[in-house]
Amino acid sequence: MTGNVLIVGAGPGLSASLARLFSSEGYAVALAARDAAKLDDLCRETGARAHSCNASDKDSVKALFETLDAEGATPDVVIYNASGRTRGPVAELDPDQVRAALDVTAFGAFLVAHEAAKRMVPKKAGTMLFTGASAGIKGFPQSAPFAMGKFALRGLCQSLARELHPKNIHVVHFEIDGVIFRDDRGEPYDDPDKTLQPDEIARTYLEMARQHRSVWTNEIELRPYVERF
Amino acid sequence: MTGNVLIVGAGPGLSASLARLFSSEGYAVALAARDAAKLDDLCRETGARAHSCNASDKDSVKALFETLDAEGATPDVVIYNASGRTRGPVAELDPDQVRAALDVTAFGAFLVAHEAAKRMVPKKAGTMLFTGASAGIKGFPQSAPFAMGKFALRGLCQSLARELHPKNIHVVHFEIDGVIFRDDRGEPYDDPDKTLQPDEIARTYLEMARQHRSVWTNEIELRPYVERF
Amino acid sequence: MTGNVLIVGAGPGLSASLARLFSSEGYAVALAARDAAKLDDLCRETGARAHSCNASDKDSVKALFETLDAEGATPDVVIYNASGRTRGPVAELDPDQVRAALDVTAFGAFLVAHEAAKRMVPKKAGTMLFTGASAGIKGFPQSAPFAMGKFALRGLCQSLARELHPKNIHVVHFEIDGVIFRDDRGEPYDDPDKTLQPDEIARTYLEMARQHRSVWTNEIELRPYVERF
Amino acid sequence: MTGNVLIVGAGPGLSASLARLFSSEGYAVALAARDAAKLDDLCRETGARAHSCNASDKDSVKALFETLDAEGATPDVVIYNASGRTRGPVAELDPDQVRAALDVTAFGAFLVAHEAAKRMVPKKAGTMLFTGASAGIKGFPQSAPFAMGKFALRGLCQSLARELHPKNIHVVHFEIDGVIFRDDRGEPYDDPDKTLQPDEIARTYLEMARQHRSVWTNEIELRPYVERF
Repeated sequence: MTGNVLIVGAGPGLSASLARLFSSEGYAVALAARDAAKLDDLCRETGARAHSCNASDKDSVKALFETLDAEGATPDVVIYNASGRTRGPVAELDPDQVRAALDVTAFGAFLVAHEAAKRMVPKKAGTMLFTGASAGIKGFPQSAPFAMGKFALRGLCQSLARELHPKNIHVVHFEIDGVIFRDDRGEPYDDPDKTLQPDEIARTYLEMARQHRSVWTNEIELRPYVERF
Repeated sequence: MTGNVLIVGAGPGLSASLARLFSSEGYAVALAARDAAKLDDLCRETGARAHSCNASDKDSVKALFETLDAEGATPDVVIYNASGRTRGPVAELDPDQVRAALDVTAFGAFLVAHEAAKRMVPKKAGTMLFTGASAGIKGFPQSAPFAMGKFALRGLCQSLARELHPKNIHVVHFEIDGVIFRDDRGEPYDDPDKTLQPDEIARTYLEMARQHRSVWTNEIELRPYVERF
Repeated sequence: MTGNVLIVGAGPGLSASLARLFSSEGYAVALAARDAAKLDDLCRETGARAHSCNASDKDSVKALFETLDAEGATPDVVIYNASGRTRGPVAELDPDQVRAALDVTAFGAFLVAHEAAKRMVPKKAGTMLFTGASAGIKGFPQSAPFAMGKFALRGLCQSLARELHPKNIHVVHFEIDGVIFRDDRGEPYDDPDKTLQPDEIARTYLEMARQHRSVWTNEIELRPYVERF
Repeated sequence: MTGNVLIVGAGPGLSASLARLFSSEGYAVALAARDAAKLDDLCRETGARAHSCNASDKDSVKALFETLDAEGATPDVVIYNASGRTRGPVAELDPDQVRAALDVTAFGAFLVAHEAAKRMVPKKAGTMLFTGASAGIKGFPQSAPFAMGKFALRGLCQSLARELHPKNIHVVHFEIDGVIFRDDRGEPYDDPDKTLQPDEIARTYLEMARQHRSVWTNEIELRPYVERF
């Protein structure tokens, strides 16, 4: 085993690719999602253990980490891969849905970083990887909640990097600029030439997790070669 | 009267300067703060009306705008000047305080933009001014909540600008980079040579509110001449 | 007279609007252009004096400032408004034209800042305004030379601001994001609703030149309300 | 052989690490430097071939590529690693030295991209890697020429990426934020804990060169874990 990895916001797509790759590289993988049952197949395939967790609830996140501690699976690497969004003209958005989206995209990332830092700071080691989006660099129209959440996530990652890098904890924000391939959702997800391949994203996550601390990246962008930006 | 202006997050400092300047330029000024009583002196001085409002509560913000509607004071210009923060190592922060800070800095700004847009979009006119900070450009260590809130605010402003500028509604994000002068708080607030003069900030807000739509600014930064950045 | 202003890269459009506005506000205006003869009408209208200058030639820029010194017209405000560009696929560009474009857009701006700083630093006062473009924020395809020149200009302005603001010299980079109105060039320059009005740009330049040093702006963006960005 | 790589601006430090790593991975390595003789040891060690080239001279760069063509060594990967700088208060800089610095840092990068694009576009394949610096993100005081050059380089890389990514040519700008380790130059270069290890930088260059086109990075930053930013 090269360490324990926790993937929060697990599901099909990127999280599954991450689970497979980190598992194949010798990591023990823990998956956390609101509905852990849907992760059964992935667990069988990768040897991962699944945990139910509401990432935007402080008690649920705390309990998740305590469970991992008890199992001897305190994470060396955490990956935050959850996000929420609601779209529409700003005048027509539902404030409750907006707040719920912010809670998942940004506040949940804070909660996971908070619990992870409690454990990594005393150990003077660890890695935190956060899945951002182009919406964290540029706020698009009719998408204020996603812009707010992903900008907040990037602000979090910059603050964490400046605070935790000198404590030997590596923090990376991945700007995923484009649509991640999914073969079960139709257009525009199913065009392999215009989307990000989740296995390839995962490879860059792994490489970043392995960077020597003399060359740590805080921000990196990934996009399909045909993506306009 | 040149119009109605609403200042949310009113108190001493910048909001008082804004109230004085916009009032002297002929605007009818409404002030909103959690504790409206503290605004009595400012109201007497500027002829402003004060309203109690919890900016991060959707019902409170909705009621504020309905009161203004009933008074014939539906705002032509809204200024969002509220923010919350809690500081410390990420492992030691109190999640409830973090969420409360995000609610004031970012979600409240959304709520005010939401109610304002409901009224401005049909009128095809309006101005929204948001007080940001250098923390919205760069995430500082031990200050994750402020970074998250002010980044989210900037994401909101970019999304709003791209959505609302073509609808003739001007959205400006002011990056206030430095400490605003206050003579009642001691160092570092009381050094007039190292701080931002609130009357001078207000002047730039007014100028931005008056920009012709052929040259609308979305982002502008203000800092003292001696500020390191 | 409220001071001397020098506008480098003078011609019709923005420079003419700047000359008119600063002149009407009491400034003595000097204009510098490769071909000074074309400025006769503008000089008659504004009382400005025109000077021939090749902004990317160090001796020419030096001579310009020495002439102004001799006339008692050493500038309190310099405005750099010259740029060059050549477009096309990177493989097809002419290197000599690329270098010439960089020289005008960026190196000339340095030369003017260099001569201005020689005079402003000892006086502990002055203002430098630089006309940038969206190409200085985002590099567009088939436009590498303009991206390089305008990025370099922004880098220059940031370096100057960090060096000169504490010396009481104000440096502003204006990101002009869009097409400036011209009624003599056809589409897309002649649509008053989709272009930047040069008189309105000039107004913001003047306001920035007048900012109190407690609230100095280094970067500001201006764009038409309908511009996509 | 997995391909031909050309490293421009070769010398000790990063270029040597790149030559060793790419060579060990099966690439045929060509090195270009103003003084090719100094590369003898590196050539012996890596099997690389050295070429004399003045990167800021269009004829010299053209001749370099034609020599490589004749040798069957037309590059599949080009790495631009040259830069020039001169420091000091803007009023005291020597304009000729400033122009020379810009020529090496930015114009030379254009010339190499120009010649490389001529060859890669018809082949519909290729990789261009450019060594940037924090000075390309933030303009530091008393360092206007380096800010101008490295900003221009970043503008070039963004323009190239938007133009060439859809043509299957990958362009990466590396922001090297910090000092690269050198054991022959004393402080601050010789502290292995505060500097970037060139072998580790090279590893990230290689990984970026190998990215699948569905996840191409255009900008990535690398810095030591203790670096302030």
